[in-house]
Amino acid sequence: MGKNILMLIGLEDHYIDRIKKAAPNCDFIFAKPNAVTQEQIQAANVILGNPPAEMLQGCTQLDLICLNSAGANNYCEKGVLPKGVLLTNATGAYGLMIGEWLVGMLLNIYNYFPQYKEHQHQNRWERLKSKHHTVSGSTVLVVGAGDIGGRFARHAKNLGAYTIGLRRSSLKKPDYLDEVHLSTSLDELLPRADVVALCLPSTGDTYQIMNKARLSLMREDAVLLNVGRGTAIDTEALIECLQTGKLLGVGMDVTDPEPLPADSPLWQMRNVHITPHTSGSSSFEQAKDVLADIFCQNLQAYLGKGEYRNIVDLSTGYRKLDD
Amino acid sequence: MGKNILMLIGLEDHYIDRIKKAAPNCDFIFAKPNAVTQEQIQAANVILGNPPAEMLQGCTQLDLICLNSAGANNYCEKGVLPKGVLLTNATGAYGLMIGEWLVGMLLNIYNYFPQYKEHQHQNRWERLKSKHHTVSGSTVLVVGAGDIGGRFARHAKNLGAYTIGLRRSSLKKPDYLDEVHLSTSLDELLPRADVVALCLPSTGDTYQIMNKARLSLMREDAVLLNVGRGTAIDTEALIECLQTGKLLGVGMDVTDPEPLPADSPLWQMRNVHITPHTSGSSSFEQAKDVLADIFCQNLQAYLGKGEYRNIVDLSTGYRKLDD
Repeated sequence: MGKNILMLIGLEDHYIDRIKKAAPNCDFIFAKPNAVTQEQIQAANVILGNPPAEMLQGCTQLDLICLNSAGANNYCEKGVLPKGVLLTNATGAYGLMIGEWLVGMLLNIYNYFPQYKEHQHQNRWERLKSKHHTVSGSTVLVVGAGDIGGRFARHAKNLGAYTIGLRRSSLKKPDYLDEVHLSTSLDELLPRADVVALCLPSTGDTYQIMNKARLSLMREDAVLLNVGRGTAIDTEALIECLQTGKLLGVGMDVTDPEPLPADSPLWQMRNVHITPHTSGSSSFEQAKDVLADIFCQNLQAYLGKGEYRNIVDLSTGYRKLDD
Repeated sequence: MGKNILMLIGLEDHYIDRIKKAAPNCDFIFAKPNAVTQEQIQAANVILGNPPAEMLQGCTQLDLICLNSAGANNYCEKGVLPKGVLLTNATGAYGLMIGEWLVGMLLNIYNYFPQYKEHQHQNRWERLKSKHHTVSGSTVLVVGAGDIGGRFARHAKNLGAYTIGLRRSSLKKPDYLDEVHLSTSLDELLPRADVVALCLPSTGDTYQIMNKARLSLMREDAVLLNVGRGTAIDTEALIECLQTGKLLGVGMDVTDPEPLPADSPLWQMRNVHITPHTSGSSSFEQAKDVLADIFCQNLQAYLGKGEYRNIVDLSTGYRKLDD
């Protein structure tokens, strides 16, 4: 029985060939997420990629959506997914890249590269008087020690940091974490951290987890890093905190809202370093390999062969069996 | 018998206390390298720190100089050191910091942080179309795989790179190098490298080791990093090479000459990232601990207890038994 597979992600031919081989006798339809029609979605049994959430209601043929993002929050709200539709996410596809972004941003701040770039623009050879920092010997707190946070913790540990991981529901301690705590311990841990890295999906529990009170618990010269979702930080509280001169640096790949409005004071704050949600992207080679693997495995599972990978628990927004 | 110890490096009291304990009954004199007098140097039996090389001739009391730099080139030229003076260097004091600088600069370039900082200055949320690079999967060639280069190779390996080390005189292969070659193989290795990191002291052999011909052997989108000494690169050839659009990025903590003149075209080249010889400094806490250790050990050896550490071979400029 041929099934209808709707592809909403741009992949090179050799990836498409692999995916088609995983689902022989199926019909593949290709569209862009921002140009897909209601008819295409209505006719699909499986969607690979991220469809507009508001177009999913009443799709009676739909059995499976394999997202190309790790975050699944748009699809977990009540009433978005038709009953019985299975949702998988892309956990594992972005950890490699975002882990490198995190350690790179931390070293960028610790080595004062942005400040020296300002000197460079003025043809100026001049050493800063600022205190030098190294990852070696620093205490790194990873809030959300899953695929991405775990990779960063491993890098930091390899560089000589003391690593503390905060997890949602499990105290399992991998070798690259010196300590593991539950998220409920965040307040006690923040004053110990030289570096706080937020690697969180957007859920009710993570919304503005870094609020004014928690920012005030951070050390004066601590570094705050955010990947995942911008809503993990109360933006107004962060701006107020930075205006008092607190924090050595903030590295953000995500903001709230996105795109960050042109009139946000964050843009011109010297200690803030912003990239426009580019730390991981499904257009990167490194992600496509993993995405193709996940799609192939889940198509085969759908057609009766093997197990699904990365099934999302709709009640939490996380991959099931994550921990 | 009290000896005269001349201290030419600024250290906090607790370091001075440690050093004095290593040489009881000795007289300590403190001066700044740029304000030390000929009389002070004449009277010294031991110098801790880097004295002006031109002031050493005819110092008949002098037995030992413990440099606070890894580079010893100023002191290895014929006629600089009085006969019989032992020279030690600070190999080991800067590897930790410079290793972090190197991996930080590579990730800075690979993640396009300087380009995104330019967007940030314009309040602009916009993704670059440029190809994304990761250290994972890249081939890293470390030219001079000693203390500093070895640390960088280890970091790169931990991030998933394939690491090739070039060494002066030994093919001993540590676990963080996938391949080891002698320096004579440089020409064959350059075309294979995504990243070329120069971690070399200034010697006759390393002078402009990256000349026009070797720069032309590098890949179009390779990254060139230089710590150690600026003279390892032919500056004019590098400028010409960059003007053709070649190289993804160049990260330099050292230049030739230093300071880099204000009219050097390097300052305003977008792919060039300059820090003013700040990757490692004896003013950093992380270095002082190691320097104090080396000074204490060598003072004790001078006074008859234990072995010297980091003796410089004047014919090569390197620490003896380096490999």
